[in-house]
Parts: sequence; C-alpha cells; structure tokens
Amino acid sequence: VNKYSKLHRVGVVGFRGYSGAELLRLLGHHPGVETYLLEHRSETEMRRGPLGVRPLKTVPATAAAAIEEGLAVVFLATPAEVSMELAPLYLKAGVKVVDLSGAYRLKDVDTFARWYSEDHTSPHLLEEAVYGLPEFNRDAIRQARLVANPGCYPTAANLAIRPLIEADVIDRSRGIVCDAKSGVTGAGRKPTLKTSFSEVAGNFSAYSILKHRHVPEVLQTSGLGEREFTFVAQLLPINRGILETIHIRVQRIKQAVELLAIYEERYENEPFVRLYAPGAVPDLFSVNRTNFCDIGFVFDVESQRVVIVAAIDNLVKGAAGQAVQNMNLLLDLPETEGLL
Amino acid sequence: VNKYSKLHRVGVVGFRGYSGAELLRLLGHHPGVETYLLEHRSETEMRRGPLGVRPLKTVPATAAAAIEEGLAVVFLATPAEVSMELAPLYLKAGVKVVDLSGAYRLKDVDTFARWYSEDHTSPHLLEEAVYGLPEFNRDAIRQARLVANPGCYPTAANLAIRPLIEADVIDRSRGIVCDAKSGVTGAGRKPTLKTSFSEVAGNFSAYSILKHRHVPEVLQTSGLGEREFTFVAQLLPINRGILETIHIRVQRIKQAVELLAIYEERYENEPFVRLYAPGAVPDLFSVNRTNFCDIGFVFDVESQRVVIVAAIDNLVKGAAGQAVQNMNLLLDLPETEGLL
Amino acid sequence: VNKYSKLHRVGVVGFRGYSGAELLRLLGHHPGVETYLLEHRSETEMRRGPLGVRPLKTVPATAAAAIEEGLAVVFLATPAEVSMELAPLYLKAGVKVVDLSGAYRLKDVDTFARWYSEDHTSPHLLEEAVYGLPEFNRDAIRQARLVANPGCYPTAANLAIRPLIEADVIDRSRGIVCDAKSGVTGAGRKPTLKTSFSEVAGNFSAYSILKHRHVPEVLQTSGLGEREFTFVAQLLPINRGILETIHIRVQRIKQAVELLAIYEERYENEPFVRLYAPGAVPDLFSVNRTNFCDIGFVFDVESQRVVIVAAIDNLVKGAAGQAVQNMNLLLDLPETEGLL
Amino acid sequence: VNKYSKLHRVGVVGFRGYSGAELLRLLGHHPGVETYLLEHRSETEMRRGPLGVRPLKTVPATAAAAIEEGLAVVFLATPAEVSMELAPLYLKAGVKVVDLSGAYRLKDVDTFARWYSEDHTSPHLLEEAVYGLPEFNRDAIRQARLVANPGCYPTAANLAIRPLIEADVIDRSRGIVCDAKSGVTGAGRKPTLKTSFSEVAGNFSAYSILKHRHVPEVLQTSGLGEREFTFVAQLLPINRGILETIHIRVQRIKQAVELLAIYEERYENEPFVRLYAPGAVPDLFSVNRTNFCDIGFVFDVESQRVVIVAAIDNLVKGAAGQAVQNMNLLLDLPETEGLL
Repeated sequence: VNKYSKLHRVGVVGFRGYSGAELLRLLGHHPGVETYLLEHRSETEMRRGPLGVRPLKTVPATAAAAIEEGLAVVFLATPAEVSMELAPLYLKAGVKVVDLSGAYRLKDVDTFARWYSEDHTSPHLLEEAVYGLPEFNRDAIRQARLVANPGCYPTAANLAIRPLIEADVIDRSRGIVCDAKSGVTGAGRKPTLKTSFSEVAGNFSAYSILKHRHVPEVLQTSGLGEREFTFVAQLLPINRGILETIHIRVQRIKQAVELLAIYEERYENEPFVRLYAPGAVPDLFSVNRTNFCDIGFVFDVESQRVVIVAAIDNLVKGAAGQAVQNMNLLLDLPETEGLL
Repeated sequence: VNKYSKLHRVGVVGFRGYSGAELLRLLGHHPGVETYLLEHRSETEMRRGPLGVRPLKTVPATAAAAIEEGLAVVFLATPAEVSMELAPLYLKAGVKVVDLSGAYRLKDVDTFARWYSEDHTSPHLLEEAVYGLPEFNRDAIRQARLVANPGCYPTAANLAIRPLIEADVIDRSRGIVCDAKSGVTGAGRKPTLKTSFSEVAGNFSAYSILKHRHVPEVLQTSGLGEREFTFVAQLLPINRGILETIHIRVQRIKQAVELLAIYEERYENEPFVRLYAPGAVPDLFSVNRTNFCDIGFVFDVESQRVVIVAAIDNLVKGAAGQAVQNMNLLLDLPETEGLL
Repeated sequence: VNKYSKLHRVGVVGFRGYSGAELLRLLGHHPGVETYLLEHRSETEMRRGPLGVRPLKTVPATAAAAIEEGLAVVFLATPAEVSMELAPLYLKAGVKVVDLSGAYRLKDVDTFARWYSEDHTSPHLLEEAVYGLPEFNRDAIRQARLVANPGCYPTAANLAIRPLIEADVIDRSRGIVCDAKSGVTGAGRKPTLKTSFSEVAGNFSAYSILKHRHVPEVLQTSGLGEREFTFVAQLLPINRGILETIHIRVQRIKQAVELLAIYEERYENEPFVRLYAPGAVPDLFSVNRTNFCDIGFVFDVESQRVVIVAAIDNLVKGAAGQAVQNMNLLLDLPETEGLL
Repeated sequence: VNKYSKLHRVGVVGFRGYSGAELLRLLGHHPGVETYLLEHRSETEMRRGPLGVRPLKTVPATAAAAIEEGLAVVFLATPAEVSMELAPLYLKAGVKVVDLSGAYRLKDVDTFARWYSEDHTSPHLLEEAVYGLPEFNRDAIRQARLVANPGCYPTAANLAIRPLIEADVIDRSRGIVCDAKSGVTGAGRKPTLKTSFSEVAGNFSAYSILKHRHVPEVLQTSGLGEREFTFVAQLLPINRGILETIHIRVQRIKQAVELLAIYEERYENEPFVRLYAPGAVPDLFSVNRTNFCDIGFVFDVESQRVVIVAAIDNLVKGAAGQAVQNMNLLLDLPETEGLL
C-alpha cells in the first residue's frame, strides 16, 4: 500500500555518527526512498544488534558505486574535510549532494579559512552551493545540485531573528545576544575528554565564546555585522536539543501581539515553525525528536526588551531532519514527507 | 585537639530542605560550633539512615527553646512566610538570625509586595536587616542582629558585575544581560511537577523571564535600573550549581588585562572569589561543593563586548556556605572557618 | 491515501500521565484509529504547547459519552482504583476496555487484596479479564471484552523466562533471580519525593524488595512458586526503559546454541521479540521508543549458569505499545499496525 | 594549630585520573601529610583552573626523586602495566607503595594471566603484596611494604558476604548472585566510546558478564569457588557509586535479627562499615563522597532468601579513600584520619 510507485535511491556517508544514524532512522520511515549505506571509513564501531534484522545495502562511498546503484541523492554526514573531498566526486557523477558539514555554507573562501582554520579544498563549489534553510531559500534548493545543510545553532538563530530583522523592528545599535545551549550529540560521536560522561554529567560549560564557527554562518545569512551579533555556545548535560535565549531591544512596538503578528505573517505556511502565545516559550521537550523549530518570546514594553526562546532538536531540524526536508525539495516530494 | 575551647551553639530551622541539609553538612565540619535541629514543621520526610549514627539534638523552633539552650545564632532555611514569622521572635529573644529566604533582602516594602506577591508581615525589620554579601558588606554584617543571606542568582551576579560598575567601565546604555542557569536543588525539596525527574532529565527550560524575584535584589544592591538589567533564569538538568553568562559592552578598554586588573584590585583579599586568566572561564565543576565564586571573561576589543562567566554552587556560596560565612562574621570567628 | 476506509474511534482515560501521553503519541501515528481524550480528573497539568495545533476531541470519561461517540475501545491509563470503577461501566455500554493498571491482572481476589493492600471493587470481572501478553495469549485476546494489559516488569520477565520454563531446562530448585531496573516514568507523573529530580539524579536505589506487586503477576502467568522467584525492583536515574538481569541454573545444556534454539522456536513468528547471539545482550538504547523486547544471554557450561538480559521500553512494550498491540487484536487490525 | 608536628611526605602517580584526583582531594584534607605530584605520563589534560591557586610540588615519577624528596609512601593510581613497572622501583628505593591497580591483588600468576590477558612483569612481588582490605587484613597491612588496594566491586562484595560465609549460614549449594552496578568514573578518565556521554546518559548496560576481572579477587579473598559466585557488572548513568544487590539463600535462620547480629559482631569496631535495620537498605546517596560501606538486607524466613544491598562510593571506599585508610595504617596514623 505504498503511495509511491517508484522509490528514489539515496545514500548516507558517515552513517555511524549521530547525524548519520538519525538520517537512517528518518529515512527508514520515509515511504519514498530506499537507503544505502556508503562506507567511507570505519572510525567508530557499530552497536551490536539483535539477530534477524535485515541490514541495509552497503556499498563503498565512491562515485562509481553511486552511479552503479543509481543513487539520486547522497547525504554527507561527515567532517568538513571529508565533505570537501567527496562532494565534487558525487556532483561530477551526476548525484545531488546534501552536505551536513560546514564545508559549503560560507560563500567566502577567506571567511571559511579564518573560522575553520583550514584551507578549502574545493572552493569552486562555494558559489554554486545553496544554503539549505527551506524557510528562507526554498526555490533555490529545489534547483540545486549541492545543498549546504545549515548548522544546528544557525538554524534556530535564523528562524528566530530574521523575521524581526526583515520587519526592521530591532534596535541593532544595542546588539543581539544569542545565548545558546546544546546537547552533547551536537559534538559528534568521536570520543573526547570534553564529551565523556564523567566530564559532562552534572556539569555545564561555555565554549568557543565569541569564536564559534557558526557565527559567520549567521552573519552571512542574516546580514548582521560581527559587532552586532554576540554568540555563546554552551554544553548541556543532555543528549539532544538546542535552546537559544536571544536578547534584543526593539523599537516602536506597543504590544506583544505586534511581534507575534510579524512572526505569524512570515511563517504562516511553514510546516516546521511553531509559535507560542506572547509570554509562553518552548522547552527542549517541546521539540524532542521532531523537525519543528518552536519560537516564543517575552516582551517588556517599557524597556522595549524582548527575550526570544527558540528550540530545536539538534539532530533533527538541526541536522538530519532538515537534510531530509532538503532532499524532499530536491526530489520534488512533499516537503514534510517522512518528517511528521 | 579542637582549637576552640568553647563552642557556640547554633540552630537550624528547615533542616530537612536542601539548604538546611547543606548547612548541617557544613556545620558538622566546623570546629567552632555545636549544632541543634530546630523542629518547625515536618513537611518532608527524612532519609532513613544507618544504625548507630548519633542524632543531633532536636528542640522546637521557639524562642523559649533557643533561650534555654543558649543558642547564639539561628539559621532560617525556610520559606519567606516562615522567616517573616520566626525572625522577630528570635531577635526579641536576643538570638542573632541568618535568614536564607528572601524575606529581609529588599529594603522597600512595596517592592517586596510587588515581586513576592504577598504583604510583608514584619516590615519593621527591613531597615535593620543587613544584606549578607560579605565581599561588599563585611563590616555591617559583623554588627548585625539580622542577616539577610543573599539569593543564589544575585550572589553570582553581584560578584561578577559590581567591580565593573564601580570602576565605571560598563556602557550602561547598552544594557546588561544576565543569562542564568541553575541546578534543580535551587527550587527546594518540596515535590512539584516542575522539579520531578521525568520533566527535568533530558530537558532545559527558561522560567520567570524578566519577572524573577531575584531581579529587584540585584537592582537594589548594584544600583542598576530595571531597564538596564535583563535577567533570565533557566533550569539545568543537574542537582547543583549556578552558571551565569553575562553580556555587557564596556568603554575605553584597550586590553583584557585592564578588566582583569579591576577584578584583581577589588578581590585581592577575598578568600572566596577566584579569577581566571582572560579568555578562560569556569564551569560548574570548578566550584562544585565549594564556597567559591569563580569569575572569568572573554573580551573583544573591536566591539568592546565582554562575556563574563560566573559560577557558584547554589547550595554553598549561593545559600548555606555564605550563611556560615556570615555566621563566622557574627560570632567573630575567622571568616573562612569550616569553609575551605 | 489512508489504507483504511473507516477509522475506529478509541478513547484514552488518563491521557495526562506518562502512559496516557505515550498512548496518544502511538495512536497519533496509527492509520486505523481516531483518538478521543476522555476527561476524568485533572490531577496533573498539561504542558503548554504551540499555537495552531488542533486539539483532539475531548469528552467526559462516561459510558454515555462513549456510546454517543461510538467508541470501540477505551484505554484506561489510570490507577487501579479508577480502573475498577470505570471498566464495568464501559463494558456494560458495550465498549471494549484495555486496562493498563493492575486492577484485572490477578485472577484471585485474595491475592489482589494481599499485594495491592485494598479490596477489589469489581471482582466479578476478574475471571473474564484476559491477560494481554499477545505472545502467550493471542487467541484469547482477540475474543476478549476486557484486556488486562501486563505490568512492565512482568512483560520482560515472562518473555525472558517462559520459553525456558516450558522447555523444562531450568533447575528450579536453585531459584530464579530477577534483578530488575526501571526508569522513572514507570512510577507515574504524580510528583513525589521519591521521583523528584534531586533525589533521583546521580542516585540508584532498590525498592519493594521481595514485596513488589508485580511478583504475583509473574507467578500466576509463569506457574512459578513464590519461593522460586526472587524479584528486586530498582530505580534508574533515566526516564525510560526496563532492563532485567535474570540469573538461573539450567540442566543438561551442552552448548549455548541449544538455549538460543529454544527461544528461536518459541518466538519464530513474533514481531516484537528479538534475540541476540549467545554472549551478546541488549542495553536500554536497543529498545528505546520501540515495542520490542530484546533478549540475550551468557551461558557457562561448567556451572550451567545462565545470565539472561531482557530489555523493553517501559512506556511502550511495558505499557502503551503493548496496549495498542492488544487493541489491534481486539479490532482485528494487523497486530503490528502503528508500532513499527 | 596542626596536631601533627611532622608531616609525612607522600606522592601520587596518575594524579590526572579520577582515582588520582580523588586522592589529591582527600590528601588535601589530611592533616598529617604533604602531597607530591609524581609526573609519569601526561595522557590526559588537566582542567584549567583559577589564577592564584598554589600548585602542589611536582617531581618525576622516579625512585631517585622519591629518595631525594624523602617520600614515605607512593600511591600508584595507574593501569596495571604501569604499576607492575613502578612498584618494584619504589620498593627497592625503600618507599612503601599503595597500588590502586589490579597488578598485585591476585596471588597466583596464572590466574592473573587468565583474567588480565597479559603476563605479570613483576611476579616476585605477588607473594609479599598485602591485600588492602583493612576490615579483614589490618595487622598485615601495618607491616606491609606493598599494599594491593582492593578493586571497587570486591570491596563491597567482600564486606557484604564474608561475615555470613564465616558464620557458615549461607546455603552455598544454591550459589551467590552479585548483581553489581557502578558509576562511570569506575572506568577511568581515558575517553572511550563506551564511556562517552551520549552512549551512557539515558542508557543502562551490562558488561563482562561472568568474565569480569574482579571475580577472581572475590574468590581468592572469600574462599568461594567460581561456580558458587555469579557476578554481573553494569554501568549506571551516574558519575560515582557502586551498589551491589546480592542474592543468597541461608540455612537455619529464624529471624532477621540473627543475621543482623552476625554483621554487628563482625563490624562492631569498624569505623567505615555501617549497618541498617532489617528491611532497610542504603542507596548511593547514603555513601556519596564518604569512605563508608553501607549494608542492609531483606530476609524472607519461609524461603530463607536474603537480598543484601551494599553501597560504596567507588572513588572513595572503592579506591582513593581505602588507599588513604591503608596509608594511615602504613604510617601508624589513626586509621580514620582525613576520612571522616
């Protein structure tokens, strides 16, 4: 009783990582695709599972294998170094690519070098790559060959502040502070001291203060200047979820509903952005294991202060879910397929 | 081999709560005092312990019992309602009081009524009460009868920002944002849905946005105006610790070491404030189960932005430890006794 | 494109609890049903959600409302007291009932009184009620009016040990030890000191040792005597999952594969029981948010000792998932519908 | 006002690990010693701390440096390989050694090779080494040069079951099941996938079933045979603590108090073993950050079943605390010094 007569074949490189595993989970529920594991490196071990579970087909992460199997889209759930190496090969083979790393998000090669502390090895693709935030880039994504899936932090930040920037109600001279908190899966599956249980459980810590590589991504997409946007990343002792507390000052707003109206107009037809009544805000459970970005705020009319709270699941709307959303656009499938 | 020939007798009301239990733990290591349990209400059950542990002496939480036992200091680890009722009784009986609730922190009775949503039942004590932040109020505490032990959030906030306010380097027109995060023991031991395990574990949530009752306490002690100070409280899925990420703009600062010098000069002789090299910040493990407030910051000279990170253990420097520090001052004992 | 032309209407009493909320989640993905909220008591508050989410239809938890709406099945995710009161009313109205409480699991009214410390208020239904463990009772469930959904601990214990009991390979004179561990949602949503965050996080504790009310349920269904089956329940500082470590001695087993063969034969066609290769065992992540019961074991031939590890998600196979599995049988739907 | 006129100098190898760091914490509170850091390898990074904290004196982990500094005792908080290399060097230099690894716990070189999967490189010390469980070996420890500090699991297991073995009340033909659970610090500080936050938080898993290297240690010290003692280790999603649930059958016991009397007689003068009333058992909070081993049990007279629950802090009584207790014996200091 599958509603699709023909399945699109798609592949995942980096399927052992957390974003990759989440992609497999989501694609496993998607009625329109058949998923391949693309074996690149075995840097981390697989979990040992039960008997009798039929494994997915595994082929090498090469252009030749992709052509032979007729893959329509390949997801790169890999470090930027690997994505810079593989994306050109797949594109040359006529396979569309959704890259979950930071390799193709920044347009400027020098900005990339500054924030990623390495040279870009396939800079010719930077111009072509389309930033995969469907709420702001839907048409371009549909036409793309290479989609740069947004970073987790910038996804929430952009969805929370761009409507207000576009409506020109923010007093930008006061600056925008984004105090962000993320679960540990955002740091990937490779074991490190910083993500080991006994260092994280019962603890809370700030990192990459003013220096996080997601900053230029927000600046590029929002049009904000570096001095206008303060970003602090912090590590929550939980597995999943990003919550951003964003502090702004607005101008000429008389009531909270005016702000709500700006959001409502912008996101009226967006399936994955949900708004809250003024004064109510989401927590991480609101979005756990969903592709939603939930946005709420508190407004103080006297001081024109607004505290916005935006929440996503970093592995879903912040990574694999948004990647599937982009894939749906690339393959001309319903945008929400497999995601509700 | 006890260095004190005579022990001061002190009592704890509310010893079944988390702050009260922490007081018992700290006082149990203090060589200069003998501790009494003052039984007021049995709202929560005790943990069942091992055989053969000699219990502390328990007497009723009355002025008569305090006089009879010769108590020098009573700690009120109780809700504000109970503290407003008990503090006058103990003071009348000649017993000094360290109150851990918010009952006597605010000088203005209307401000109290606004933020605590109730009328003050012993307003005559508000003027006399001394705000127990030793780093800024040491001499007055020594002379006090009634010490209002500071709130957990204001302790970290004041210690982090007051040196910069006093040095007049903050651009106050830009506002000060204090994005605060606390462990669950800060909410007390009474079972509620908001603090039940399955609602908190794996979650993260903001609460009392712009409306937290600790706001007026910071305003009163720092001299900041309500529009200048933005405060958000957030609940971390951990037991202990407060970390505050404070976002400010400064003026005319050329190097990070200038800011460090301001802090160093102010806290030179303070035993419980520790500073970090510019660029380094504490996490919650830095201060776990200690009476320290650790302060670090990151400075961006171009934009004059400073991100300050201050950390305390909410049950120690944020409650019971600071209360013992205040008791040491009241009893003319070394200020660090029992706290290192 | 829904494959079912007609939807069955089903209702949930107790939808604010954790099992009830999990039922709503599962039924929301089930293509064959339309779900009603049956309002009985509002003992716990709802989470405040985003705007624009269409609420489910809510009617009173009465027989009249069930008849008027044409409900086919009602789930009682309620305490035993409430289930004893509501089940007779719904049955009289011709509505089938899946009860998630312990009210109708035990056949003997005195055994119920002993372990539940209360008298049964609808004992006439005990004989009719069918124990809803599909792997051992499928045909009876299909014909039932009232299904007693099994307890979470007994579900894992029965699935793990009954094949070996039936194959008569256990040395019962040595006893069976079931050392069980459960996440906190198993204790329900009502706030208590025992399930409050600060009492559970970082802790681990045993409770109801030898006295847990799930013991008679295992005895009744497995045929074991009270002296043969030792059960200890323990509280894990996690939200979801039950892992049972079961210690037995077998007789006349020469190789681990003999034991595996017993399990494989028994569960050959079972969609929700998964087995592991000898020496491998599941952990809680193996079954998280699934309706699977995963079973693995380690065998020592010299001593004939077997350590069995069985894992389920207490809210799915241990409660709501199994309830949906039973509903599927009652409504003659595919047994796995909505559960894979 | 220090009560000791002369301080003993002691050193710690492996001070960056969790046991080593706990040793530093405990020795820092010990009035009778001065602590040196013995630098062997820098396999893990130090935490970056506040300014102005005076560091401990650091010297190389060599015999020459130990002689030059006049160290009386060296703690080896190192892997067995390193301990096998360093212990002989320190002993030859006349320095007493407390080894926290498993290198010198087993008397038989073949047993060591079987369970540790490597050959012993200093087997000549196995006979001389004294097993450092003071409650059962106090006099020998006082005379020792080399103390093998017990494993964490065997410490709790021995303290819980040896009194009953010695009193000959256990029905050993039924076997003893020790179902043990440990916090993550027990696995050391080296980052691995198995101890990374996202693999452990929200999970629970059994490991080394029937094959844990602590098994032979229990057998050697308790006199039990391998078939009589079933041991399962399990990983709790917490930092600290071991709780062992021990299932036995006894013989000829008429009342619970008879069992309690056996424990009380055995541990009458033991400062670090605490007993509970029959029916009450400790949890991990009972012993958190203490050197206590807490023991409680539930007894069923009909079936003669006993469920014993023993709890320790794996880093204190299970490692560093017991090591300090042993050091106190070696240095003829009060056994509880620095530990209460």
